[in-house]
Amino acid sequence: MEKIKCTISYDGTNFSGFQIQPHKRTVQGEIEKALQKIHKGQAIRLYPSGRTDAGVHAVAQTIHFETPLQLDVESWKKALNALLKKDIYIKQAEKAPASFHARFSALEKEYHYIVLNEAELNPFRRNYVYQFPYYLNVLKMEEACKYLEGKHDFTSFSSARSTAKGSKVRTIYEATCKRNGSEVIFTFRGNGFLYHMVRILVGTLLEVGQGKREPSSISDILAKKDRQQSGKTAPAQGLYLWNVIYGAE
Amino acid sequence: MEKIKCTISYDGTNFSGFQIQPHKRTVQGEIEKALQKIHKGQAIRLYPSGRTDAGVHAVAQTIHFETPLQLDVESWKKALNALLKKDIYIKQAEKAPASFHARFSALEKEYHYIVLNEAELNPFRRNYVYQFPYYLNVLKMEEACKYLEGKHDFTSFSSARSTAKGSKVRTIYEATCKRNGSEVIFTFRGNGFLYHMVRILVGTLLEVGQGKREPSSISDILAKKDRQQSGKTAPAQGLYLWNVIYGAE
Repeated sequence: MEKIKCTISYDGTNFSGFQIQPHKRTVQGEIEKALQKIHKGQAIRLYPSGRTDAGVHAVAQTIHFETPLQLDVESWKKALNALLKKDIYIKQAEKAPASFHARFSALEKEYHYIVLNEAELNPFRRNYVYQFPYYLNVLKMEEACKYLEGKHDFTSFSSARSTAKGSKVRTIYEATCKRNGSEVIFTFRGNGFLYHMVRILVGTLLEVGQGKREPSSISDILAKKDRQQSGKTAPAQGLYLWNVIYGAE
Repeated sequence: MEKIKCTISYDGTNFSGFQIQPHKRTVQGEIEKALQKIHKGQAIRLYPSGRTDAGVHAVAQTIHFETPLQLDVESWKKALNALLKKDIYIKQAEKAPASFHARFSALEKEYHYIVLNEAELNPFRRNYVYQFPYYLNVLKMEEACKYLEGKHDFTSFSSARSTAKGSKVRTIYEATCKRNGSEVIFTFRGNGFLYHMVRILVGTLLEVGQGKREPSSISDILAKKDRQQSGKTAPAQGLYLWNVIYGAE
């Protein structure tokens, strides 16, 4: 068996999220269907670095799968892209060592969240940004971001619906917020993220940007370990899994 | 009765074109449904500057309608946007004189066509550009554009399926082609365009860009007044109705 690692991009708009579900169109479902065709009917399971929710996009998600076939990496890329609809694109296929696992070998993930801060709605961006027409103080949001960097318990910024049992301590290496024309782009880079964490972080930071909270309130929210303390969950369509980083193998 | 002129923008992806059709989602159908709600059940007909096909976008299309209601223009804009889904946006509403007609008063139309000239497919742009991965000589296409400017019979660049009887003579004030990073943007400004004309112009210019035709061949194609002489119809999703220009009223 060979292990194949792929870097993929997808527009999350027309998917019920990443994870396979019966009777729903999912990223995993579409790629596994393509893999099954390539394997002449044999089911092949794929493993992602992590799931993404309905409407969430990926500029560079990583997956792996094992195969009895002997194809070169360019042929894997071509065969999969030929079978997939155009809202998923296999950017790269590589051979990976047996020890590689898309989820467990990941060292770092990077997410971007794009807010379009314009008074008028733009119909072309509706599925790709959060259109927020009100004034935002980016300097205040930048200041608030600094309180997120480092190792913290992010219970307050994880969905109360999360059933995950383990530790909610994560390390954020970078949390930034920049204005680029009418776009406000949030970047989060860390060793892992809890369910809905980036969207709750953004929802809370937007309240800072509107003057509803002080930047320093982020410390208090973290300390309370209570989802009720943080802001709304920002909508899915502004969120992009931007990159997944692995160590040298 | 008051006449209201609106400048609207729409993402053509999820519409079966502009014109109302039974059992299909169309731009006209959606706006007329909203107008009917505002008029408490009374059907209101709207008139566009012209139709657009399925998948074709509008950055600034113009429509008008007549109404017995007395609303200020900001209220028209708000009421319509509140009822419409987010793939149509009313950018501006204005009161227009009785003599105004969105189609017959139009002096000039501008279309843009966007080609994404990159080797790798981009899933986020699939509905908004024509993804063309092969080499394009933009200088040759610019040169070819010059042959299109002026007053010509555009029979060779109109769909053979067109049932329009009248003259196929149109004046193109501007035909240009520019590279902007990996995008190649075609701009056409003229006093009117025939059915599929912009898409056939682009399909033919792309053949010039690939070296399959000489720039000067455009003159011969025009002279022959025969659709068989021109190139393929470029796909709908790269086409934008960019602006409609009216005289001072």
